[in-house]
Amino acid sequence: MIGRLNHVAIAVRDIAKASAVYRDTLGAEVSEKVAQPDHGVSTVFIHLPNTKIELLEPLGEGSPIAKFLDKNPDGGIHHVCYEVDDIKAARDKLKADGARVLGDGEPKIGAHGKPVLFLHPKDFCGTLVELEQA
Amino acid sequence: MIGRLNHVAIAVRDIAKASAVYRDTLGAEVSEKVAQPDHGVSTVFIHLPNTKIELLEPLGEGSPIAKFLDKNPDGGIHHVCYEVDDIKAARDKLKADGARVLGDGEPKIGAHGKPVLFLHPKDFCGTLVELEQA
Repeated sequence: MIGRLNHVAIAVRDIAKASAVYRDTLGAEVSEKVAQPDHGVSTVFIHLPNTKIELLEPLGEGSPIAKFLDKNPDGGIHHVCYEVDDIKAARDKLKADGARVLGDGEPKIGAHGKPVLFLHPKDFCGTLVELEQA
Repeated sequence: MIGRLNHVAIAVRDIAKASAVYRDTLGAEVSEKVAQPDHGVSTVFIHLPNTKIELLEPLGEGSPIAKFLDKNPDGGIHHVCYEVDDIKAARDKLKADGARVLGDGEPKIGAHGKPVLFLHPKDFCGTLVELEQA
């Protein structure tokens, strides 16, 4: 069912500093910062030859990554995102298998403009998994 | 400097259960379990079209992932591994930039039979970074 690893998301307190680490120290291609007020984060993408790293910085009140950064003040790997061909079919199969889909179970439009869902970390090896329709 | 994302490593207590989640629930291609006594872990690889997920289970006394699992009893994302063309040149550049290389700074032969180094999470957005010579 799952296809490509679309991205690995890393939550950070200071996205300018994290961007500099990836650009200057690790020598990667780093995008500009984009505010995503609908998602409560600002994003920067690190373009690798086969996938991308998504840096996330909290934006506004009640950011979905605020609690994670309280627990991980230096930042840390927040989630992995796998691509699926049909997100509703994937959701129905996962629910039939007893896996928990976060929220109301309806795909939302994610930071890349495509339908996404998040799966419960307890059902997936302690890792938050995002599914994105390819 | 960094190239492809070689893998994302997920530490788990029960690699058979985690393998079943990826094989049966997420429908991915999952390898057999391999004991890596030199590294204190057993590994299973999830083959995705563009990269791989490495499941890690503690093996023997003093496994390098034991403390991580004490802090993260459900498991969790342990590290990311980026490929570099020349690991010693990469190390020297990183050290010149003030980044900390773990251990004695000499590349070791990793679980894939290639030279690897680990970088200090405090210098890399709170994430443990492995570099592997491509």
